Amino acid sequence: MAGNTFGHLFRLTTFGESHGAAIGGVIDGCPAGIALDFEEIQRELDRRRPGQSAIVTQRKEADKVQFLSGIFEGKTTGVPIGFIIANTQQHSQDYDHLKDLYRPSHADYVYEQKYGLRDHRGGGRSSARETAVRVVAGAIAKQFLKGIKITAYVSAVGELALPEKDYQLLDFSQIEKNPVRCPDPVLAEQMEAYIREVRKDGDTVGGIVSCVIQGVPVGLGEPVFDRLHAELGKAMLSINAVKGFEYGGGFASTRKRGSQNNDIFLPDGTTHTNYSGGIQGGISNGMDIYFRVAFKPVATLMQEQETINRAGEVVQFQGKGRHDPCVVPRAVPIVEAMSALVLADYLLIHNAYKELV
Amino acid sequence: MAGNTFGHLFRLTTFGESHGAAIGGVIDGCPAGIALDFEEIQRELDRRRPGQSAIVTQRKEADKVQFLSGIFEGKTTGVPIGFIIANTQQHSQDYDHLKDLYRPSHADYVYEQKYGLRDHRGGGRSSARETAVRVVAGAIAKQFLKGIKITAYVSAVGELALPEKDYQLLDFSQIEKNPVRCPDPVLAEQMEAYIREVRKDGDTVGGIVSCVIQGVPVGLGEPVFDRLHAELGKAMLSINAVKGFEYGGGFASTRKRGSQNNDIFLPDGTTHTNYSGGIQGGISNGMDIYFRVAFKPVATLMQEQETINRAGEVVQFQGKGRHDPCVVPRAVPIVEAMSALVLADYLLIHNAYKELV
Amino acid sequence: MAGNTFGHLFRLTTFGESHGAAIGGVIDGCPAGIALDFEEIQRELDRRRPGQSAIVTQRKEADKVQFLSGIFEGKTTGVPIGFIIANTQQHSQDYDHLKDLYRPSHADYVYEQKYGLRDHRGGGRSSARETAVRVVAGAIAKQFLKGIKITAYVSAVGELALPEKDYQLLDFSQIEKNPVRCPDPVLAEQMEAYIREVRKDGDTVGGIVSCVIQGVPVGLGEPVFDRLHAELGKAMLSINAVKGFEYGGGFASTRKRGSQNNDIFLPDGTTHTNYSGGIQGGISNGMDIYFRVAFKPVATLMQEQETINRAGEVVQFQGKGRHDPCVVPRAVPIVEAMSALVLADYLLIHNAYKELV
Amino acid sequence: MAGNTFGHLFRLTTFGESHGAAIGGVIDGCPAGIALDFEEIQRELDRRRPGQSAIVTQRKEADKVQFLSGIFEGKTTGVPIGFIIANTQQHSQDYDHLKDLYRPSHADYVYEQKYGLRDHRGGGRSSARETAVRVVAGAIAKQFLKGIKITAYVSAVGELALPEKDYQLLDFSQIEKNPVRCPDPVLAEQMEAYIREVRKDGDTVGGIVSCVIQGVPVGLGEPVFDRLHAELGKAMLSINAVKGFEYGGGFASTRKRGSQNNDIFLPDGTTHTNYSGGIQGGISNGMDIYFRVAFKPVATLMQEQETINRAGEVVQFQGKGRHDPCVVPRAVPIVEAMSALVLADYLLIHNAYKELV
Repeated sequence: MAGNTFGHLFRLTTFGESHGAAIGGVIDGCPAGIALDFEEIQRELDRRRPGQSAIVTQRKEADKVQFLSGIFEGKTTGVPIGFIIANTQQHSQDYDHLKDLYRPSHADYVYEQKYGLRDHRGGGRSSARETAVRVVAGAIAKQFLKGIKITAYVSAVGELALPEKDYQLLDFSQIEKNPVRCPDPVLAEQMEAYIREVRKDGDTVGGIVSCVIQGVPVGLGEPVFDRLHAELGKAMLSINAVKGFEYGGGFASTRKRGSQNNDIFLPDGTTHTNYSGGIQGGISNGMDIYFRVAFKPVATLMQEQETINRAGEVVQFQGKGRHDPCVVPRAVPIVEAMSALVLADYLLIHNAYKELV
Repeated sequence: MAGNTFGHLFRLTTFGESHGAAIGGVIDGCPAGIALDFEEIQRELDRRRPGQSAIVTQRKEADKVQFLSGIFEGKTTGVPIGFIIANTQQHSQDYDHLKDLYRPSHADYVYEQKYGLRDHRGGGRSSARETAVRVVAGAIAKQFLKGIKITAYVSAVGELALPEKDYQLLDFSQIEKNPVRCPDPVLAEQMEAYIREVRKDGDTVGGIVSCVIQGVPVGLGEPVFDRLHAELGKAMLSINAVKGFEYGGGFASTRKRGSQNNDIFLPDGTTHTNYSGGIQGGISNGMDIYFRVAFKPVATLMQEQETINRAGEVVQFQGKGRHDPCVVPRAVPIVEAMSALVLADYLLIHNAYKELV
Repeated sequence: MAGNTFGHLFRLTTFGESHGAAIGGVIDGCPAGIALDFEEIQRELDRRRPGQSAIVTQRKEADKVQFLSGIFEGKTTGVPIGFIIANTQQHSQDYDHLKDLYRPSHADYVYEQKYGLRDHRGGGRSSARETAVRVVAGAIAKQFLKGIKITAYVSAVGELALPEKDYQLLDFSQIEKNPVRCPDPVLAEQMEAYIREVRKDGDTVGGIVSCVIQGVPVGLGEPVFDRLHAELGKAMLSINAVKGFEYGGGFASTRKRGSQNNDIFLPDGTTHTNYSGGIQGGISNGMDIYFRVAFKPVATLMQEQETINRAGEVVQFQGKGRHDPCVVPRAVPIVEAMSALVLADYLLIHNAYKELV
Repeated sequence: MAGNTFGHLFRLTTFGESHGAAIGGVIDGCPAGIALDFEEIQRELDRRRPGQSAIVTQRKEADKVQFLSGIFEGKTTGVPIGFIIANTQQHSQDYDHLKDLYRPSHADYVYEQKYGLRDHRGGGRSSARETAVRVVAGAIAKQFLKGIKITAYVSAVGELALPEKDYQLLDFSQIEKNPVRCPDPVLAEQMEAYIREVRKDGDTVGGIVSCVIQGVPVGLGEPVFDRLHAELGKAMLSINAVKGFEYGGGFASTRKRGSQNNDIFLPDGTTHTNYSGGIQGGISNGMDIYFRVAFKPVATLMQEQETINRAGEVVQFQGKGRHDPCVVPRAVPIVEAMSALVLADYLLIHNAYKELV
């Protein structure tokens, strides 16, 4: 099915494989008249870019976006914004040994079963390379979301985790100052050291990205199925390697009593606590939205593993090429981008009903 | 926006408030020729029905579904199946004291902010009563999903939890034998006692519903945005009181290394372990799908709480009416129903591409 | 597929067959706070109702709409408006003789081929009875479209036709004063006489409904695929028996030169002529929108016809029951209703982008 | 809104302006495993290409399509097919004089009103250049629609028209043998001469494209709103300059009696006549589908016209650049392409329900 489109009014369609000529996207429904900050868009792409630090994949893509439509004299015109990012450093031959293999915990097997054939080079469409397109779209959405601030950061790498639910105490200005993107500099150093250790073992490790969204107006979200957190959840779960999503109190709230978990109102409609995570009944309540996204360890290991080939024979193989030992540092801008897409979409929908009656 | 429709080819639209004349739904895209088992549909509704046991709300709705269209001589005809469930036991006067209040951690405040007015009776549209409609639709979807078995159960109530990830050791036949719907009879008794205790305190407690789906063919799921687990996640997050979703290894996998987390293939394409939770790259791989859904404690307490009224004045109030001290037992059939809706939808989409080229 | 939903933000889903328990619909995305005029809704239904005059079908349905949700204290609440209209006068036995027949130029054959079975009573889902639901939804949409006036009327019955493109000279106040709904009283009488004559012959006749929409703001319409006239065209073509749609100059413009067809601007942005029909490039330009909808003659005749049965045998049969000799008088409110649905939807979409940048 | 996507399962999203860097599209939902005939795709593009004959615009675009994704070793892979067509011959300076003007019967005025600004070069997004993208997508859809033959042709230019409804007598092999694409060689010559004459006058003329679709299986179409002809109608009305759509008997059927218009069955389910145009109740009946599409005369004239500028001042201006005196010859492949998109989409939807119960 046509599963490569996200959003309703503000809508992104993506295309492109890891080792094709280019990846790209179409943003449809972007409001007209936005004077785009192209350097900011590139900065977001650079945050996701491979090769940006010693603890991420060393594939060296320039990741320069080329806009083809929808922008005139620096401003959005209201018509679709088409754009591409060339793939320049494919090293497809690194993947020749995978042609007849199904890598464990990759999508090789299911793609071939589903489609009858597959582009085996670099994971084809199932590669996380596609998320660069999301980052471009998210960067444009962010420029439209004036007054809304989206901040994602790494809150756990393996067992190394920030204490739960204390985001107000964190210093967000630290996030971009370390390659892990953890707001706690001490923990960030431990995480970085741990990622290096894991990589030395030819292994990988999972982690958690947390996200805080500030300045969201009251009223975004469309019950009963298109609740704001349901769409945010879907957005996050559509990112490669994500295994879980929780918002507000999340899984921890299942262990609590209602009397411990209710958010008591202040006279102005804000609440003392915010276990709700800024969303009630699927609708934003004006408090900070916060959620956590679980990433599994990358499946590509630089150590020998057993797997099967097309003939169903058990074979040994070892990852080649350039891979991330831990995806969460590079996932931070992707989580922000997907958040921005959801908010831009729901803000437009919300606006549709303003001052009507 | 039109947020009350779920699905693409197999599509449910719901309507109705807690205390209106009726709730109901329209199932569009249901295949023709299914000989419906109406008793089975009612049995599913009865599993969600209030008043079914001592540990759930004592509102006594008959919850009889009346089908209005789309069925002829006992079979689906391929056209929309419209149906209603009358609201007969509203006791709306129980809610008169809430007319000018915003209950803590309820949707009262955001509905009024979003829509400018609200139906305060029993929570109006934000009430979980709407989920009865989903159960009807899910029961019909289940009858179409031959060979696929969906089993949800309560895996945690407060701190009382089944040990993680051992669902293969559970005896699913026990689930419906206790009012908590926990497959472990001993734990079920503890949970039941705990819920009674919590209720005696006028309090509530959260919990977790786990779900296992067996017999799913390989190939369901539509990358990149409409991944099977992303849609399942959205489906679950659209249920009242849900705060989190994880599948396969879930949040626990974030703490693991890739070498511990990869699922090694057997020659037939199945895998030794199933940390993937039956889904790779957003596409079912033929192994069991399993996931967990976090429910917060119900916000309505039978004890005094502080809140605000429309004028922004702080007031005291206490819940009246009939409420669940813990929603997870009644959430089990809802989780199954939403699973069935997702699977029916994705199975049709999958079928669209069969034997084409 | 789920083809029973129309619209994006203002969205109608319909269900129900001619001879089931009820037909009904769900309006999702209707703005909150509209104080509904229920008598006006009923008046619109009465305009479509069978039995309203001597020249339409004598099936005598009360066509009383029952609202089940989405309305509180007389106002829309922003949540789905569910409603049903009971079928009380089915006379299903009138259709027993059709059980094994495929009536010529009806949907009997294709429904049975598509779905493998069919509800043969009164045409089942393919009956125009379903359009009553659209009229209810359109009547609500109209109440939201303040300042926009939608006027449909019969412009042709068989060869009897108003001269083309002179709608400005017509007296719209005459439309509801005759059973044909033609604004020219003299022609209306001729049409009525002709319809009586045709009915006497056991025959039927086609006709044209024209529609003028005044007061539409500039800017409605979403190029390139969702052009305003494309959506209006789809809306009209979705009405039973419609075979064609043209707007502005329509088919006649194909015979003209550009120098005769261009609409020259006045300084205020309006135009001297309006061959464009109020839409340029798929976007409303503030001039009157006008279009014409072609209805074929009803296929059910009260004279003997040859057809085939399920076994492929040629058989003779004759229509029974109560049928319209000419549908256009009753189609007038349906054309208006579908227009209102399109405009409500596009007005909301337009509003979404207001005052954003 | 996001109005630049067409289709449900087989879905095209387009982007690009007349004078931007490139136009392009994304086809999502194309079945995997189709061995594409790239020369055939280029042939279709060449049929729409400017400069192909003396009677069309002399803009000389190469119109070479570059595929960026979704194809591996010559076959579709089931993932999105992204592609671009470079704009190489823009001559944007030809449009500088239009910067502050609103051309009569163009979209200049409404785009500026709707979006607050516009890309005035060559009509920007409202240019028919965008339809080249549709032709590429249609050419791919055609390759998937084995056994279905779509034939469009010019049936009228101004007053010069083929006699109505005799398509069975036409020799379709003649269509591509003359620059007008009319199957009657004698009439084609007259049409060509007339177009030359009109162009000499600096004028333009309208026309009609007819289309016949053969080999459609019974059962395509999704009542009640997504009837096959409603979607075909929307598809056609979304093409630039289209003012009307009729199928089967069309507007002519409004003048007929039912006894003259009904299609009597043959024992095999086919019909003696085909006034229905291959569609009953919105569902294909296996007979030929045929319809007619009305194109107005091009609005850009090579003679002086009065219009207004941004300041609301009346000014004189004359078209420059390279324009078509009559669009219908180049519209033929576009009508076919949009037909192919609709059929591919509905065929997939139909397939979804096969052999299920």
